[in-house]
Amino acid sequence: MTGAGISRRHLFGAAGAGGMAVAAGAAGFGVGHASADPSPPRTQAFDFHGRHQAGITTPAQDRLHFAAFDVTTDSREQLIALLREWTDAARAMTRGRPVGAGEPTPYDAPPADTGEALGLPPSGLTLTFGFGPTLFQQDGGGDRFGLAARRPHALRRLPHFPADHLDPRRSDGDLCVQACADDPQVAVHAIRNLARIGFGTVAVRWAQLGFGRTSSTSTSQTTPRNLFGFKDGTANLKAEQARLLERFVWVQPGDDSRAEWLAGGSYLVARRINMHIETWDRASLDEQEHLVGRDRRHGAPLSGGSEHTAPDFTLQGSDGPLIPVDAHVRLAHPEQNDGVQILRRGYNFTDGSDALGRLDAGLFFIAFVRDVDRHYVPMQLKLSAHDGLMEYLQHTGSALFAVPPGIGPGEFVGQRLFTS
Amino acid sequence: MTGAGISRRHLFGAAGAGGMAVAAGAAGFGVGHASADPSPPRTQAFDFHGRHQAGITTPAQDRLHFAAFDVTTDSREQLIALLREWTDAARAMTRGRPVGAGEPTPYDAPPADTGEALGLPPSGLTLTFGFGPTLFQQDGGGDRFGLAARRPHALRRLPHFPADHLDPRRSDGDLCVQACADDPQVAVHAIRNLARIGFGTVAVRWAQLGFGRTSSTSTSQTTPRNLFGFKDGTANLKAEQARLLERFVWVQPGDDSRAEWLAGGSYLVARRINMHIETWDRASLDEQEHLVGRDRRHGAPLSGGSEHTAPDFTLQGSDGPLIPVDAHVRLAHPEQNDGVQILRRGYNFTDGSDALGRLDAGLFFIAFVRDVDRHYVPMQLKLSAHDGLMEYLQHTGSALFAVPPGIGPGEFVGQRLFTS
Repeated sequence: MTGAGISRRHLFGAAGAGGMAVAAGAAGFGVGHASADPSPPRTQAFDFHGRHQAGITTPAQDRLHFAAFDVTTDSREQLIALLREWTDAARAMTRGRPVGAGEPTPYDAPPADTGEALGLPPSGLTLTFGFGPTLFQQDGGGDRFGLAARRPHALRRLPHFPADHLDPRRSDGDLCVQACADDPQVAVHAIRNLARIGFGTVAVRWAQLGFGRTSSTSTSQTTPRNLFGFKDGTANLKAEQARLLERFVWVQPGDDSRAEWLAGGSYLVARRINMHIETWDRASLDEQEHLVGRDRRHGAPLSGGSEHTAPDFTLQGSDGPLIPVDAHVRLAHPEQNDGVQILRRGYNFTDGSDALGRLDAGLFFIAFVRDVDRHYVPMQLKLSAHDGLMEYLQHTGSALFAVPPGIGPGEFVGQRLFTS
Repeated sequence: MTGAGISRRHLFGAAGAGGMAVAAGAAGFGVGHASADPSPPRTQAFDFHGRHQAGITTPAQDRLHFAAFDVTTDSREQLIALLREWTDAARAMTRGRPVGAGEPTPYDAPPADTGEALGLPPSGLTLTFGFGPTLFQQDGGGDRFGLAARRPHALRRLPHFPADHLDPRRSDGDLCVQACADDPQVAVHAIRNLARIGFGTVAVRWAQLGFGRTSSTSTSQTTPRNLFGFKDGTANLKAEQARLLERFVWVQPGDDSRAEWLAGGSYLVARRINMHIETWDRASLDEQEHLVGRDRRHGAPLSGGSEHTAPDFTLQGSDGPLIPVDAHVRLAHPEQNDGVQILRRGYNFTDGSDALGRLDAGLFFIAFVRDVDRHYVPMQLKLSAHDGLMEYLQHTGSALFAVPPGIGPGEFVGQRLFTS
């Protein structure tokens, strides 16, 4: 996952400026907009090949188009052919080239590429593919493609969490593609062309657009804010923490004897979390900060210090701990979760307004974890039951996918699942 | 509408690079992504004050959040108070500052600003305000705020066009705000905070997010592509064409004796145009190019030349005119519309997928015109009835707003409507 030659200089330049910006931001709120990252260079390209798929530890791009697909064929061969075609298209698009580049377009046939990204640079596009539980085994138990024996143990529908209010039309799926880019037109173009290639083999089950990454996945990035107005993901795992990534993100050989094909991959947890924006906006600053457990301006824990100071959950104030027992930062913190750390890569979303004029908006949560049952489910059970913020949240979509490892130039995505 | 001091250097830099990029793009399709505009500097800020409102001839930013509001009060004073508050907030936000900046936030009150744009630069934010027909006169004829006598003659619901399939929940409105920025989080933050300020006085009626501007409004910008994959808006009016703007965009003194307050303003036409993407993607290149009337790769008219060559509608091929009689470029061209030129400022949109897995996507068309009845309605009647592209389009939303002129530092938006 290195920047391509053309953008390497820009990449380092951006990282350097980002570092400066953090320092300026720490000087205080008064500096206004000095703490933001500079615009990423649109010429930036990430290699589609590698030990892991791109789009996981890649510095989080600004925009998301996420799509879940249902497979509509019963043919294993058609499914494999699709994955081959998707892989070729992903190779081209992540390099900023159209689908079918190099092939002539006959005038009496539809163009191989839909064209709206012609002339646009790669814009940091990554395409990350995942396999849902139902690809391996239908809800009734049927083995659709001869894959049931290779289903990872942890790959099943997530459990029901307290207060879940899931919309089946925004949940689950046989396959998923996470398209991230710094230009939404590039991300939308990618999903559209993959859907088009899949016509007759897959159909879009649901899709989600996102903007304003809500986590940093690299130390070169500043911490962004979520739609509650707070800095989010300060304690997120970062690309630079190689040992922690092996421990908490990448599936290791031997983790699951019937799914060795998944080693080097991960699990993608997707949760569409609506925020009750209008209600939140009427809560006092005091209440907001106590629910989050951090100060709003700088993101410092209420126990003191600055954004990156470790929270002290033991410090007492005049009426209880400075960081309340139901504060989000306490319940989600590794210290309170057996040391578990997760790599989050979510995006803000707003899908317009509902019939009452309220914003249909929130956080499209994405996390990559090595072990769903140890690294995600216990924390979410705790958050759903006890997090004070839950009063302002509603989980409306949910999905889990196994993300196969990266591939080499001659392979197709997920090849080891089908061949090894 | 000049760039603020901090960004002037970047602005000129970008214009220069854009010029070069056009030349490189013209060298051929093989150059791939060389023809794109560079990322706009996020530090760019546009002055909220001026003879005209910003966001009309301002070089089109990358992202849109458009909101139409219904006024829920009967009080003229409350309406004026809202416009004052909106003006103050717009002044702050377009400078990259939070709403209520400078005022201390008591801990027992909600913060004046929702916070998710804290730390982000101005990102070229413009906020453009408009007044709908129903602000002046309700559908039943009632004069809600003592404004009926000052309603511009042309400000009424647009006529029904052939094949219109309008959703009332995506149409009309008493007020509108067009927020454009190079960072969607900044645009969304602005609309959210204006809606919040208006709580109890206005309610969001509908909203639309857009990305990938579909027109250039400055000669410094390259021509973008729409979701049909074609360059769009090659012949668009540009900020640099001052005389044509006076003739076709800005309402002139004497245009409308009962609405002199509108001189220096304009009319904003909004049309949500769904594209039948999946059907289009299966049309042959030949059919696509004949429906548009331009070649897909370079955007040159089918009569020959390059993108900016004037189309020759008389040139004949072996079976009829090279640019077919129902081609979009012919029907929309000034030469076929009594010389009328319009300033378009639309955006691509995609709002996810419908129940059948089809993309809910298309073009959110925005145009600014001096005279709706001469500069928009005749052309749209012709397009709706005869444009071959209509087979792939469906107009699903429609609205018309009068956009008051710009204001000075001591005024509020629309002040002349209420006071002069």
